Amino acid sequence: MSKPISSHLANGNKISLAGFTPQHFRWEQRGAVGLVTLNRPERKNPLTFDSYAELRDLFRNLSYVDEIKAIVVQGAGENFCSGGDVHEIIGPLTQMSMPDLLAFTRMTGDLVKAMRACPQPVFAAIDGACAGAGAIMAMASDLRVATARSKTAFLFTRVGLAGCDMGACAILPRIVGQGRASDLLYSGRSLGGEEGLQWGFHNRLVEPDDLLEHTLAWAAEIATGPSFGHAMTKRMLHQEWSMGVDEAIEAEAQAQAICMMTQDFHRAYHAFVAKQRPVFEGD
Amino acid sequence: MSKPISSHLANGNKISLAGFTPQHFRWEQRGAVGLVTLNRPERKNPLTFDSYAELRDLFRNLSYVDEIKAIVVQGAGENFCSGGDVHEIIGPLTQMSMPDLLAFTRMTGDLVKAMRACPQPVFAAIDGACAGAGAIMAMASDLRVATARSKTAFLFTRVGLAGCDMGACAILPRIVGQGRASDLLYSGRSLGGEEGLQWGFHNRLVEPDDLLEHTLAWAAEIATGPSFGHAMTKRMLHQEWSMGVDEAIEAEAQAQAICMMTQDFHRAYHAFVAKQRPVFEGD
Amino acid sequence: MSKPISSHLANGNKISLAGFTPQHFRWEQRGAVGLVTLNRPERKNPLTFDSYAELRDLFRNLSYVDEIKAIVVQGAGENFCSGGDVHEIIGPLTQMSMPDLLAFTRMTGDLVKAMRACPQPVFAAIDGACAGAGAIMAMASDLRVATARSKTAFLFTRVGLAGCDMGACAILPRIVGQGRASDLLYSGRSLGGEEGLQWGFHNRLVEPDDLLEHTLAWAAEIATGPSFGHAMTKRMLHQEWSMGVDEAIEAEAQAQAICMMTQDFHRAYHAFVAKQRPVFEGD
Repeated sequence: MSKPISSHLANGNKISLAGFTPQHFRWEQRGAVGLVTLNRPERKNPLTFDSYAELRDLFRNLSYVDEIKAIVVQGAGENFCSGGDVHEIIGPLTQMSMPDLLAFTRMTGDLVKAMRACPQPVFAAIDGACAGAGAIMAMASDLRVATARSKTAFLFTRVGLAGCDMGACAILPRIVGQGRASDLLYSGRSLGGEEGLQWGFHNRLVEPDDLLEHTLAWAAEIATGPSFGHAMTKRMLHQEWSMGVDEAIEAEAQAQAICMMTQDFHRAYHAFVAKQRPVFEGD
Repeated sequence: MSKPISSHLANGNKISLAGFTPQHFRWEQRGAVGLVTLNRPERKNPLTFDSYAELRDLFRNLSYVDEIKAIVVQGAGENFCSGGDVHEIIGPLTQMSMPDLLAFTRMTGDLVKAMRACPQPVFAAIDGACAGAGAIMAMASDLRVATARSKTAFLFTRVGLAGCDMGACAILPRIVGQGRASDLLYSGRSLGGEEGLQWGFHNRLVEPDDLLEHTLAWAAEIATGPSFGHAMTKRMLHQEWSMGVDEAIEAEAQAQAICMMTQDFHRAYHAFVAKQRPVFEGD
Repeated sequence: MSKPISSHLANGNKISLAGFTPQHFRWEQRGAVGLVTLNRPERKNPLTFDSYAELRDLFRNLSYVDEIKAIVVQGAGENFCSGGDVHEIIGPLTQMSMPDLLAFTRMTGDLVKAMRACPQPVFAAIDGACAGAGAIMAMASDLRVATARSKTAFLFTRVGLAGCDMGACAILPRIVGQGRASDLLYSGRSLGGEEGLQWGFHNRLVEPDDLLEHTLAWAAEIATGPSFGHAMTKRMLHQEWSMGVDEAIEAEAQAQAICMMTQDFHRAYHAFVAKQRPVFEGD
């Protein structure tokens, strides 16, 4: 651990990612932002059994990491991610028993669960191909920055499968609406960058040369915010997904009362009174 | 039945629509696409007690029909559907007892339930008037192709009723958002074609002369896809409507594992390896 | 009470707002439309403990008021509402115990609950600053009319808190989608009028000089509709929020059957037959 155990959780339940060197993707720490790079550019950064598992483990561990306040996911070499590798994943799946198939689909689903459960907002920086499980990773992120030339395709139907992969039938309609989600899931067609921006799938569109730096800068900006509050925002977006409105309002009354007990709330108030910009510390 | 019972369901629980000649709308089979034409053009294709019931029965039966892989619904004569006929439906309703009223509203709701439950994706081809229960049939479809001159109106408020008709307060907000749905449901105003496209209500806008052929071609294209997978996509969009995210992900892990057991998944893989286009058979 | 107890509810459970003179905002009755004006223009109309409570009480009482058919909320002096006052609310909150904090967040949440529970459609007329709890009041309205220069900011993160305030993590994503809601809630940035219109947050954009009259006219138009039906529309949009589709359809079958028992439904039918415009009375 690179910093003392925080005062509000003194049970040692913290880990540090200092020196973390994953085998199946690249990991860099840029200040408080963790950068994940899918890194097999010659194949457009496909996912394999191993990289799924290692990504899942990273996102699970992030719940216990204090020094990382936001995550950026990108692909190397002008593509985001081409999804599950045909030879390394699809081929073997055609030979598997049902228990093994279910173990696989649960593992891929666990990656999305972990991305949604980690307290850090996740930013996807999307250029080029963003297909299959790659499109899912983009969808499972909190915020998406893309290039006009990016092509996001939920192409499960193209390999004979259903669109219901890793949460797509639940999450995609809540981002772009049921009608547009149906189009993407039944056809498997590519969503271009401009169309994605207009639909609210992408949050911002930038030039390819600016993609990584722009996304890192946005992530760094969010990382300077009240990270305890951000984590609560993310958790409540998840928690209230299928609640009634009144129950959601009560849940938020409790969650926000908790946040009002943080030092960051006090810091903001005192900075305001002193006509200064608050410096948040996440506790 | 025009084809052998499929290998994965050998219990005779199948029916054929060969020779199906409904009394209250037109039915044609174009390859694997079933075409429903609401066919009283002199009245803009209103619905009656009889046509509601017959449409409901068709969509219910489609669960047991193998040879139809997609449905297109259109209206004859440059209008989609003007909704419940004022003289044949509204008049009688004003004379009914509460049990009879509820029997009616349940029957109309059953049409939407059946459209959402049938395994085939349903395409609405929308020109001209698309009002009341007609707007609901468009909304209850999976995908919508419209003309710029089409006018879609949830006009229940105009006849003194509430906007909560046949699922509109649940489904419409998930397509266009709560704010825009509120506008349409409180005002009963017409949504034009361009506005409907921009809002994601319509998926595509085409010229009136191309409407039917374009929609049939799109439906035929989807019908060549993996129909078992498409049916699962449709079922899971329904199933996950009010689930939490984590529960939806587990539900998809199970559903997709089932799909990985189909021949269509194997066909896609072998076609890919052979650098060919897969030919799906729906099993 | 300014009108006789309606025939369908003869238990005296009605109140009149004639002579209602709130202390912490302005109240006017324009025909069947009630106009709420947040009225501390020199501070951009902030909310205080007292105004929260008085607004909550007004909206709660509206359930028992027959003569008001729609509500418009505006701010005085070219701003809608700047949210919770820093000195009068934020300062005291930093000194409170947890039970007192929870009592506060529940009171603010109760305002949103009351706005969603009252039978009248609520219109927000939004100019200038619309921030924090002000943005929430806009979001909690049924319909939003804004100016291009309006700035709507869910800026809780700027004061060190979470975006989950008064239902924002539940309601905002259903209006603009999860991706755009995440952007607004994590960044706290201002949503401009044009962008808000394009996203479906705002329903209409008008010139500042026309804002109040335009919104009042729209509210008056809706107020001439079948108010029993409108109230049911609003209730069912709330009720079906987290229902499954099939359950929502059954709920609407019951709700609409109830509406078919109203006089307004009969009035509409008889007016149609007589080729007249129906005059609705709300019963």
